[in-house]
Amino acid sequence: MDFSLSERCQDYLTRVSDFIEQEIVPIEADYFAQIQQQAGNCHVLPIIETLKAKAKAQGLWNLFMPVEPYGVGLTNEEYAPLAEQMGRSFIAPEIFNCNAPDTGNMEVLIHYGSAEQKAQWLPKLLSGEIRSAFCMTEPDVASSDATNMAATAIVEGDEVVLNGRKWWSTGIGHPQCEMIIFMGLSYPDAPKHQQHSMVIVPKNAPGVKVERLLPVFGELHEPYGHGEVSFTNVRLPKSAIIAGAGRGFEIAQGRLGPGRIHHAMRTIGAAERALELLITRGLSRSAFGKPLIELGGNKDIIANARMAIEQARLLTMKAAWTIDTQGIKGAMSAVSQIKVVAPNILQTIADQAIQIHGGAGLSDDFPLTMLFAAARMLRLADGPDEVHRALIAKLELKKYA
Amino acid sequence: MDFSLSERCQDYLTRVSDFIEQEIVPIEADYFAQIQQQAGNCHVLPIIETLKAKAKAQGLWNLFMPVEPYGVGLTNEEYAPLAEQMGRSFIAPEIFNCNAPDTGNMEVLIHYGSAEQKAQWLPKLLSGEIRSAFCMTEPDVASSDATNMAATAIVEGDEVVLNGRKWWSTGIGHPQCEMIIFMGLSYPDAPKHQQHSMVIVPKNAPGVKVERLLPVFGELHEPYGHGEVSFTNVRLPKSAIIAGAGRGFEIAQGRLGPGRIHHAMRTIGAAERALELLITRGLSRSAFGKPLIELGGNKDIIANARMAIEQARLLTMKAAWTIDTQGIKGAMSAVSQIKVVAPNILQTIADQAIQIHGGAGLSDDFPLTMLFAAARMLRLADGPDEVHRALIAKLELKKYA
Amino acid sequence: MDFSLSERCQDYLTRVSDFIEQEIVPIEADYFAQIQQQAGNCHVLPIIETLKAKAKAQGLWNLFMPVEPYGVGLTNEEYAPLAEQMGRSFIAPEIFNCNAPDTGNMEVLIHYGSAEQKAQWLPKLLSGEIRSAFCMTEPDVASSDATNMAATAIVEGDEVVLNGRKWWSTGIGHPQCEMIIFMGLSYPDAPKHQQHSMVIVPKNAPGVKVERLLPVFGELHEPYGHGEVSFTNVRLPKSAIIAGAGRGFEIAQGRLGPGRIHHAMRTIGAAERALELLITRGLSRSAFGKPLIELGGNKDIIANARMAIEQARLLTMKAAWTIDTQGIKGAMSAVSQIKVVAPNILQTIADQAIQIHGGAGLSDDFPLTMLFAAARMLRLADGPDEVHRALIAKLELKKYA
Amino acid sequence: MDFSLSERCQDYLTRVSDFIEQEIVPIEADYFAQIQQQAGNCHVLPIIETLKAKAKAQGLWNLFMPVEPYGVGLTNEEYAPLAEQMGRSFIAPEIFNCNAPDTGNMEVLIHYGSAEQKAQWLPKLLSGEIRSAFCMTEPDVASSDATNMAATAIVEGDEVVLNGRKWWSTGIGHPQCEMIIFMGLSYPDAPKHQQHSMVIVPKNAPGVKVERLLPVFGELHEPYGHGEVSFTNVRLPKSAIIAGAGRGFEIAQGRLGPGRIHHAMRTIGAAERALELLITRGLSRSAFGKPLIELGGNKDIIANARMAIEQARLLTMKAAWTIDTQGIKGAMSAVSQIKVVAPNILQTIADQAIQIHGGAGLSDDFPLTMLFAAARMLRLADGPDEVHRALIAKLELKKYA
Repeated sequence: MDFSLSERCQDYLTRVSDFIEQEIVPIEADYFAQIQQQAGNCHVLPIIETLKAKAKAQGLWNLFMPVEPYGVGLTNEEYAPLAEQMGRSFIAPEIFNCNAPDTGNMEVLIHYGSAEQKAQWLPKLLSGEIRSAFCMTEPDVASSDATNMAATAIVEGDEVVLNGRKWWSTGIGHPQCEMIIFMGLSYPDAPKHQQHSMVIVPKNAPGVKVERLLPVFGELHEPYGHGEVSFTNVRLPKSAIIAGAGRGFEIAQGRLGPGRIHHAMRTIGAAERALELLITRGLSRSAFGKPLIELGGNKDIIANARMAIEQARLLTMKAAWTIDTQGIKGAMSAVSQIKVVAPNILQTIADQAIQIHGGAGLSDDFPLTMLFAAARMLRLADGPDEVHRALIAKLELKKYA
Repeated sequence: MDFSLSERCQDYLTRVSDFIEQEIVPIEADYFAQIQQQAGNCHVLPIIETLKAKAKAQGLWNLFMPVEPYGVGLTNEEYAPLAEQMGRSFIAPEIFNCNAPDTGNMEVLIHYGSAEQKAQWLPKLLSGEIRSAFCMTEPDVASSDATNMAATAIVEGDEVVLNGRKWWSTGIGHPQCEMIIFMGLSYPDAPKHQQHSMVIVPKNAPGVKVERLLPVFGELHEPYGHGEVSFTNVRLPKSAIIAGAGRGFEIAQGRLGPGRIHHAMRTIGAAERALELLITRGLSRSAFGKPLIELGGNKDIIANARMAIEQARLLTMKAAWTIDTQGIKGAMSAVSQIKVVAPNILQTIADQAIQIHGGAGLSDDFPLTMLFAAARMLRLADGPDEVHRALIAKLELKKYA
Repeated sequence: MDFSLSERCQDYLTRVSDFIEQEIVPIEADYFAQIQQQAGNCHVLPIIETLKAKAKAQGLWNLFMPVEPYGVGLTNEEYAPLAEQMGRSFIAPEIFNCNAPDTGNMEVLIHYGSAEQKAQWLPKLLSGEIRSAFCMTEPDVASSDATNMAATAIVEGDEVVLNGRKWWSTGIGHPQCEMIIFMGLSYPDAPKHQQHSMVIVPKNAPGVKVERLLPVFGELHEPYGHGEVSFTNVRLPKSAIIAGAGRGFEIAQGRLGPGRIHHAMRTIGAAERALELLITRGLSRSAFGKPLIELGGNKDIIANARMAIEQARLLTMKAAWTIDTQGIKGAMSAVSQIKVVAPNILQTIADQAIQIHGGAGLSDDFPLTMLFAAARMLRLADGPDEVHRALIAKLELKKYA
Repeated sequence: MDFSLSERCQDYLTRVSDFIEQEIVPIEADYFAQIQQQAGNCHVLPIIETLKAKAKAQGLWNLFMPVEPYGVGLTNEEYAPLAEQMGRSFIAPEIFNCNAPDTGNMEVLIHYGSAEQKAQWLPKLLSGEIRSAFCMTEPDVASSDATNMAATAIVEGDEVVLNGRKWWSTGIGHPQCEMIIFMGLSYPDAPKHQQHSMVIVPKNAPGVKVERLLPVFGELHEPYGHGEVSFTNVRLPKSAIIAGAGRGFEIAQGRLGPGRIHHAMRTIGAAERALELLITRGLSRSAFGKPLIELGGNKDIIANARMAIEQARLLTMKAAWTIDTQGIKGAMSAVSQIKVVAPNILQTIADQAIQIHGGAGLSDDFPLTMLFAAARMLRLADGPDEVHRALIAKLELKKYA
């Protein structure tokens, strides 16, 4: 094994880190303060467009995308350390055009989209001109079992008709969101994983309505915005279906692998940030005559966090490498493993960082409750811990069959 | 040992439970929905006054108060099961005039207040006409070590002059808050626990300014409202000092014992509610062909929650009984134990309940993030877990001295 | 609630504690050292008989037994604190004639035995002249599901014929063991809980063979001795069946309630001892310039242990009180709860005490590995944690039916 | 990063795995059964010599040793997966001449030994003709702080004189043990890490006495044998000191890096074996109508074990690679991390495997209590968890200095 990063990866890593350190971190606190003062729903400040242009000009753009010419050809394993850096800031992913769910949606288009679908949507997504959402989870069923999905995408002649209600549709609140990938039931009598279809829906199509934005622990997760969206007799040409009706699950499977690597690595970056905040606070405040860091089990907390982060990072890097070398099928267990491990680590460290901050940690003076809420959400998004543990166990038991 | 409740306690328990079930729970969801739609800071809706009047008429009023004629003479042990019931609703404590920090402030007045102080403030607090705040924690020092407190209460002739900044002042945002108990440094050169004084401050005194309300996990904890408050040359007659300058810690010690019993029991009530929500959701949703409750380790979660709650309740009941029979000094370890145990249990069960609710658990459709945030705050309020664990260990080691 | 002990209980508690402190603890280390030097299987040294006589003479005998005149009429709740004290020493329970499985076997005889069965066995068991074993668990099936039991007790005319293999038969290795209560399948076609019978078997009956003694973590748990026992065509008069064929489960249920209280309270006494050893070592050794107890998270370990023990004790006391006041049926969940809680606490604290002792903790110089092994065994004996958690959850869910 | 194994490593891995599977595993149960029946202390059966010869003939010998011509030149990273395989059997390491403490002792001789020391001891150790022990830990002081070491190695003219008592001297009980590396205090007034010396002591030197063998959880850990050894006026020529008096700590530091990699990887192999036993038992036994593996949280246990093992393995591989590429100084935190992580994982999984085996898991019918005891010991050997966590935290805080 060789744990060193490729030269190319190392080069991008330096550039991305520097950009984040110099351009993004300094404006972040002010950014969120401004956003909170605005009435109504999600906002994006002009500084984002400025920084996007700057990042694009420096070639720090679409780095997540392994397929040339759309990206620069970084493997998942090479992109992963960059994703970690982007995870240190809530706004960084968008600035590098590497934010979910656009990344996954672009990948779906590239791998499964028709020429027409690509022509219509890819350029605008790749340039960062528009953003997109992904509508899969539903409020009325336990969506941990994706086959429960009940919203419909019925083919009627040359059209496909969508009905139903989705929620936790990330990105739907973003002012620039213009397209949605919708997943719905087309053939209830087909085999379980051939019943659903993915359909491209313009956000302004008649019958599409954003019912509300959903708070996560009381905060709107601006500017991404998770929403509840109703689809009422949304009629689209049949050509809006991706890769043919009934292929929704097949596409979803491919879509989620790299996306989970990105999430996991960003989560690890966030965990590093939480640990830094924990240590910095612990060194700067004193009680009972000593810096907090010297008291009780605080050093054990630091050591445990360090061990947990190192292990999670290596596990994620290996999962990325496995996707690169063996494809998504071979990486099924590895991907589920990082899906469980990374958010749990962040939740724990963010909780511990809150504790050492005292009341300040609960407030908006530090990003700790946001980090906590992000972790908490990621333990549910893209499948709850329970579903991934079950899959890991199932694959383990297969060895004994 | 006799684990049965006294007849008197049992009678109040039935009446309080019925009141909560019939009068409070049905209006709660609507109450919070209305509050969220209002602009600005903390609100109280008229329904609260209506329900307060009803509770008072039924004799369900000031039950926390063991001293007659202020209360009906329930012991801490007898009141504890009532507090548990009140913990099932965020608005119940106020309706029964049993909410912090008013409860503690009334106790301080009764036990340490001058005749004049009592005359001025007690009737209005006991009747629920006004509410109060308690200003101890400070933003600029690690307040886990209370002797760090740096805001000043300097005696100058016949006056006492307050300066400094406090935060996490619970109740300060309540529209009816009219008085503050402020704790500040009077004699920096006195022995460590004789340096500080408690002073009664009218909220509208010149120099008192609520700088902002503090969010807890993004929510304002309405209608209680934790605030940051500045005191700038607040001049009061010396008679505003409670029991004499330098006696702040002595008073604080007595104040916190029963208050921690109340908090712990309310927390246990909240934990029962979180468990009910967990089970109800787990029974009502299905995945992979079974109710969620049948899947994976969910029944273990229920069993563990049941065991944790039963134990925490008994520990708290015993702590209350120890205060009643041996006074606060004899209950020091017991009180610190429940201070650690109860909020941690609620945090865990609320987290697990969120998980089984999926995305819904993160949103405001259920009170789970509020329950979680309440637990999270209580792990810091009135001393962080770490300080209480240290005290428990110190008292344990004393046995070996 | 009243957390004080009855005067009678308090009196016995003082006498039992003094006896253990003055008579048993001083000889214990030497006792085990002598036993280990002897070849072959279980041994009992003469000192045990001497101490038994002394305890009997002082009236500290059969205290576990609530039924007069067999015992002195202590309730389960009153006996529990005495059991805790006995749990501080591995040999104490036998000296007070309060050791399992004799206690449960005597209770079975008193409640379900025929006049003849009582006459034959009770006096010798009550006097401590002989000891007994209980044969239920089987090596060939998952005995966590007791209905799996496959050894047979077939009624043939006036006889009952036993066949099969049992293990983890506690007490079978004791040199004074003379009787066995055997549980076996009589009616495979009856309803699930009416298939098995309990049969009294003289240990020297033809066909009974102790195949081997079983080590627990490499140690033989002398002098109790868990054994594997084969029954080959053991023929006994039908009158050896307790209360009638098919009533085995009914009897077992009644048998296990108080027995689990005893185990849980002894376990708590053992946990107190482990904690004392932990603290004593931590105070007496130094590293890096400080007593170990001052280092890292060691004080948190002490605080957590104190909180866990206090809660487990209260839970067990309440379970005992519930048996006393509501019978075993009403105490089902409570009894399963203490069955899970108590051994897990002891395992954790014993493990932590080992850690602070360093290598010494792993050796026989301290009783820590024995305490650990006792806890580890109790997580399986009388039903594994998993079965009890499942029962607790089942009873919880019943509230929602 | 590249997570594939080198061709050379892969080749050895196949051969070592095959050898263990075909030659060692089949004889292991019988081996331990025979050993237990023999009276007295540690034994080695002739089969070991036969298998050693076979392994040597196949070139599967001294693979741990990176320095040619002593080994075949495998890096630490290449050897690690082989160590993992050897960890699957308690007797495998000796058969491949890769067992501690011989491995570390050979490394010390190669790196620090004089020509004379090498000539006398290396050939016999490299050939497996003799075995050795390492005497550092002492019964009378907290050896977690190695500077506490009080046994003396005083230079007197041309001689060095050893006095003191050591324990947990692994390998001392092995019948072929002929040499000891002893660490003792030479210069009490020198700087803290220049006070101690390492001295080579023939086991049969006058004044060396093995006082007793130490049980670990009641078992003697045959054939390795941890012992307590007294040194009474042991006089040796000064040339017995390794590298010069006062250099003990310097040598110890270098010695422990690779040794901890070996331990960690063997521990991971042992954890894989525990997990296999857990799953195999869970699939083969049924309760309540289902295989145990389907019940409660058992699949979560499997998933958690898989995630923990994968992460620990990667962490250890990276630590090995870091030693190879940056030397031991650069790998300090990594080595301490695996020292904590690996044994804790094994302890947890062994405990869970015991639980699913029921009573059988506690007995000697399965190697589970041995696996548990090995893990438990490794949490103390070579420095307890606490010391390593403290070091990890210290190195983490250095980043903020």
